[in-house]
Amino acid sequence: MSKTIELAQHLEKLHINNMYKSDFYWTWDKTDEELDAIFTVADALRDLRERNKSTRIFDSGLGISIFRDNSTRTRFSFASACNLLGLTVQDLDEKKSQIAHGETVRETANMVSFMADVIGIRDDMFIGEGHKYQKTFMDAVKEGYRDGILEQQPTLVNLQCDVDHPTQCMADMLHIIHQFGGVENLKGKKIAMTWAYSPSYGKPLSVPQGVIGLMTRFGMDVVLAHPEGYDVMPEVEEIAKKNAAATGGSYKKVATMEEAFQDADIVYPKSWAPFAAMEERTKLYQAGDQAGIDALEQKLLAQNAQHKDWTCSEEMMKKTRNGSALYLHCLPADITGLSCPEGEVDNSVFDRYLVPLYKEASYKPYVIAAMIMMSKVKDPVSALMALDTADKRKFF
Amino acid sequence: MSKTIELAQHLEKLHINNMYKSDFYWTWDKTDEELDAIFTVADALRDLRERNKSTRIFDSGLGISIFRDNSTRTRFSFASACNLLGLTVQDLDEKKSQIAHGETVRETANMVSFMADVIGIRDDMFIGEGHKYQKTFMDAVKEGYRDGILEQQPTLVNLQCDVDHPTQCMADMLHIIHQFGGVENLKGKKIAMTWAYSPSYGKPLSVPQGVIGLMTRFGMDVVLAHPEGYDVMPEVEEIAKKNAAATGGSYKKVATMEEAFQDADIVYPKSWAPFAAMEERTKLYQAGDQAGIDALEQKLLAQNAQHKDWTCSEEMMKKTRNGSALYLHCLPADITGLSCPEGEVDNSVFDRYLVPLYKEASYKPYVIAAMIMMSKVKDPVSALMALDTADKRKFF
Amino acid sequence: MSKTIELAQHLEKLHINNMYKSDFYWTWDKTDEELDAIFTVADALRDLRERNKSTRIFDSGLGISIFRDNSTRTRFSFASACNLLGLTVQDLDEKKSQIAHGETVRETANMVSFMADVIGIRDDMFIGEGHKYQKTFMDAVKEGYRDGILEQQPTLVNLQCDVDHPTQCMADMLHIIHQFGGVENLKGKKIAMTWAYSPSYGKPLSVPQGVIGLMTRFGMDVVLAHPEGYDVMPEVEEIAKKNAAATGGSYKKVATMEEAFQDADIVYPKSWAPFAAMEERTKLYQAGDQAGIDALEQKLLAQNAQHKDWTCSEEMMKKTRNGSALYLHCLPADITGLSCPEGEVDNSVFDRYLVPLYKEASYKPYVIAAMIMMSKVKDPVSALMALDTADKRKFF
Repeated sequence: MSKTIELAQHLEKLHINNMYKSDFYWTWDKTDEELDAIFTVADALRDLRERNKSTRIFDSGLGISIFRDNSTRTRFSFASACNLLGLTVQDLDEKKSQIAHGETVRETANMVSFMADVIGIRDDMFIGEGHKYQKTFMDAVKEGYRDGILEQQPTLVNLQCDVDHPTQCMADMLHIIHQFGGVENLKGKKIAMTWAYSPSYGKPLSVPQGVIGLMTRFGMDVVLAHPEGYDVMPEVEEIAKKNAAATGGSYKKVATMEEAFQDADIVYPKSWAPFAAMEERTKLYQAGDQAGIDALEQKLLAQNAQHKDWTCSEEMMKKTRNGSALYLHCLPADITGLSCPEGEVDNSVFDRYLVPLYKEASYKPYVIAAMIMMSKVKDPVSALMALDTADKRKFF
Repeated sequence: MSKTIELAQHLEKLHINNMYKSDFYWTWDKTDEELDAIFTVADALRDLRERNKSTRIFDSGLGISIFRDNSTRTRFSFASACNLLGLTVQDLDEKKSQIAHGETVRETANMVSFMADVIGIRDDMFIGEGHKYQKTFMDAVKEGYRDGILEQQPTLVNLQCDVDHPTQCMADMLHIIHQFGGVENLKGKKIAMTWAYSPSYGKPLSVPQGVIGLMTRFGMDVVLAHPEGYDVMPEVEEIAKKNAAATGGSYKKVATMEEAFQDADIVYPKSWAPFAAMEERTKLYQAGDQAGIDALEQKLLAQNAQHKDWTCSEEMMKKTRNGSALYLHCLPADITGLSCPEGEVDNSVFDRYLVPLYKEASYKPYVIAAMIMMSKVKDPVSALMALDTADKRKFF
Repeated sequence: MSKTIELAQHLEKLHINNMYKSDFYWTWDKTDEELDAIFTVADALRDLRERNKSTRIFDSGLGISIFRDNSTRTRFSFASACNLLGLTVQDLDEKKSQIAHGETVRETANMVSFMADVIGIRDDMFIGEGHKYQKTFMDAVKEGYRDGILEQQPTLVNLQCDVDHPTQCMADMLHIIHQFGGVENLKGKKIAMTWAYSPSYGKPLSVPQGVIGLMTRFGMDVVLAHPEGYDVMPEVEEIAKKNAAATGGSYKKVATMEEAFQDADIVYPKSWAPFAAMEERTKLYQAGDQAGIDALEQKLLAQNAQHKDWTCSEEMMKKTRNGSALYLHCLPADITGLSCPEGEVDNSVFDRYLVPLYKEASYKPYVIAAMIMMSKVKDPVSALMALDTADKRKFF
C-alpha cells in the first residue's frame, strides 16, 4: 500500500466536511482535524510527486494572486501549488492595472474573478488593513456568486495578512512534525518564538502571531520573548493562551532571549516591528503623511539598534536542549557577517541548519496545494485514491 | 436537451464559414450572423462552465497579449478566455523586451508568434495609430506564415484600438440582450450614448464609437450626445447611419444629455476626449513634443471642466423611461463622491446598478473566448456538442 | 512514414544516454552526436507542430526563467518551448522578489525550484559572472535534490551567459543546415564571424564565442575578424582551434572585414564589446563604481566610433561568394538608416534577407524544446514515436 493510500485512509477518519468551499484566513478558524487534513493532504501530494504521479484535479482554471508586498518564496509556492493541481496563475499587478483610477476593492474583486477558482492574497504591510482587505475582497466575490455575476465561487488562501501567515506557519509546523517523527512526539517540547535584531525595519508581526496562534495547539510549551515595546496583537495572545489550556501545553512570555532559549527544543528567532509603532504607521499611511512615515522609520531603526544583543549567536544556541535545538526561520534571514554586519543569526548557526531550513520552506507549496484541494474538492479521500492509481505527470 | 445543445443547433443555421482563421478588428467587418455566432458561443461556453464542463479546445498553445495601455479587466478577461480554451497567456511587456533597440513591428510580430495561436492587442492611446499597429502586426504574421517562418497562423482579437473596442461593446450588447430577454425585444428601444464629465483626460473614443457602430444593428434608436468639440470619428458615424437604415432603427445626434436621456431605455454616459485634440496629440507624440503634450493636457482639462453638468445624476436618470433605464458603463467609472468630487455618475445611481454593471463586465471573457473559438475551430457546432458530453473541468 | 518517424529512427542510432538529467551550459560540453540529437528532436517537434500533433510530454510542471538582462525573443522562445512540452513558465522577476534582502544564490535556487522541471537563465552582462551564476545555481539545486529538499532535480538551459549563447548558436546552425540542404554539404564552406559597428555599447561576447565554438565542428572554414582590442575570450578560441583540427575544417583570425567576407558562404557581422574593457567593467561593477562604469562607457562609445567602416554594406556583401552569402544575425540588428544613422548593416541588405533571418530565429523555440526534452525524457525515441501517433493539439 502506498503512502498516499495510507494518508487517504487517515483523512477518511477526520471531520472535514466544512472545508469544502471555505476560505483559509487564520489557522485558529480551523478545527484540529481540519489542520490535520491539510498536513495529511500536503504529505500525500508530496508522495505523489516523488513517484511522478499527476496531481491535477483541474483540467483548466485560474489561481489569482495579489501581492501587495514583495515576495519570492510565497509567490513561487503559490505558483507551484496551482501548477501541481492544474491551475494557471494570473497575477494582479496593481501597477499595470487601472486600479489607480479609483476602483473599489469590491469592483476589483469581481473583475479579476470571472474565472477564478482560488484567490491568494498577501497584504501584510499595515496593521488593521491586511485582513480587512482580504475579507472585503472575499465578501465581494461571495456576493458576486450569489448575484449571478460569477459562475463559480473562488476560495481564499491567505498568503500573509497583518494578523496571521498561515501558509508559512503550517509549513513550519509540518517541518517540525517530520523532524520530531510525528505529532505525538511534540507534547512537552519547548519552542521559543523570539524577537531578534535586524538592521531593517518594520517586518510584519504575522509570523510570530501565526506561530503562537498555531503551535500552542500541539501540547508544546510555547514561549514568546521580545524587548519592551515589541508586543504582538493581544487578541492573538489570547488565542494562544486558550489553545495551550485546551491541549495541555503552555504559553508564556519572558523578558529575555536567554530565558526563552534555555532548554528549548525549537527556536524561531526573528525580527518584527513594534505593534504600537505599526498602528501609528497605519494612521500616518492613511493620512498620506510620508514625512511622518520617514521620521517614524528613523525612530524605529534607532530603537531596534538598542537590542543588537537579541541575536541567535552560537552562545545563545548553547543554552538550548543539548545545544542543538531545531532552528527555524521563514527566510530570508538577516545573517550576521553574510547579508549584514549584525543581524538575526550568526552565519555559522545559519549555515549549520541550511538543509533543515530549506526543507522547512519546501513544505509551503504542498501546504498551499492542500489548502486549495480541501476547499475545492468535495471528496478528497476518493480524489487522492484516484490520483494514486492514475496517470504519470511526466509521460515518457 | 442542455442549453449548450440548443445553442449549437442555433449556430448550425448561421453562415459562419468565413470566421475560421479570420481576425476580429471591428464589429462592422462582421455580418449579423457572425455577431450572432459570437453571442451564441459565448452563452454556450458560459453554460458549460456553470455545469463544470471542460471547454478546452487546445491541449497546449499560446495567447500572446500586448497591452500598450494599462488594463485590469480586459487583461483578466483575455487571460480567462485563453485559460477557458486551454491556451496559456504570454504577455509582451515592452519594458522588459529589447524593442527599444529599434525593432520594427514586423520583426516583433514574428518573434513573438512562433507558437502563437491567438494575439490580443490593446493600442488605444493615439488616434490613427492603434488600428494601424494591429494591422501592421497581423499582416506581418500572415506573411510569416506564408514564408514558412511560422507553422501556424495566429488570429487577432482587438482588445481596444483607436477606432473600436469590440470585446467591450459585444459584452455590453450581450448584457443588453439578456436584460431585455432576447434580441427580438430590442426593436424601437432607445439607447443614449452620451459624453459625461470626468476629472481625468484623454479617455479613448473607441467605446462610444464601438457602441454606435454596433448597437445600430439591432433596430434600436441610438442617440449620441456630447458637448461641442467632442465629436467621434466621422467614418464611424457613417457606419452607424448605414446600420440604422438597414435594420429599421435610427441614429441621431443631439446637443444635450437631457435630450438624449429623455425616455431612454438604456443609457451609457461616459467620458471621452475631443477627436480633434486627439489628432493634435498624435502629431505632438510623433514629433516627440512632450511640452506640447503637457500644454494640451492642461487645455483639455480646462475644456472638460466647462461641462461638469454632463453627469449621470439622479435627476438625469429620472428623465429616462420610467426613471429606470438600464445604466451601462465599461468601468472603471469616475463616481461623484466616491472616486472623485465630481465625475461621470452619482454614487447613488452607480451603486443601484452595481450588480447589472458587474454582469455586463462578466460577459467579456466569454465574448473573447467565443471570438477565439470561432477563429480557430473549423466546425464549432460539433465542438460545442462534443464539449457538452465530454469530461469535467474539475475532476473530483 | 512521417518525417518524425524518420527522425526518431535517426535518433535511435546516436549515443545519447548521457543527456538524460544533464544541464546545457556550452555546446562544447556536448559530443557531436548529442548536438545531432538536439537538431533531430528540434526538427521532429517542428514537424509534429506543423501537423497539429500534441507534443506534450508533461501533464503539469514548471519551467523557471531568470532574465538578468532584457529579452524579447529568447523570453518568448523559452515560453513557447515550455508550452510546447506542457510546462508552465514561472518567471523570477528580481525586482518583485525579496532578493534585495540579501538572499544568496543558493537560497534563491532552492526557493524557486520546489516544483521546477527546467531552469532557463540569461546572465550575460558581466565577463566572469554569468556562467558562475548559472553554475552556482545548478550546484545548489543538485544539492537540494540530494538533501531531500527537492523531490525532482531540474535541469538547466543556458539562455545566454558571458561565455556561450547555445540556444542562439544552435538555432543559427540548424538554419544553416537547412539552408545548405544538410550537414553533409557544409564541408569547406567559409563562414565569417565579424565584428560590426553599432552606436550602442557593451553587447555580450557570447554570440561570437558561441559561433566559433560551435561552427568549427562541421568541417567549415571559420574566420573571425574584429578591430584591434575587440578580442574574444582566448579559452574559446582554443576550443575553436581544436574543433577545426578534429573535423578537417579550419579556424583563423583576420584583421579586416573585407578579408573575412572575401568568398564567404555565410557572414555573421555583429557588434560586441572589447573583452579587456568588459573585464574592467566587471571589476567596476563589483566595486559598485558607477562613475567608473559611466566613464568607461563613454570611452568605449568613442572607441567604437573609430570603426564605423566595419559595416555590412552592399559593397561588402559583393565580396562574398557570388555576392550572395547567407547573412546571419541574432537580432535585433542595428540597421543603417532604419534604426540608427550608422549601424551593423545596410537597410537594403537586411531587408533582402528578412525571411531567412526570421527563419533563423524561428528555430530557437524548437532548439530549446529539444534541449529540455533530451534532458527530461529517458527514452526520447519512443517518446517521438508515441507523439507521432497520438492526439491532436487542437482538438476540433
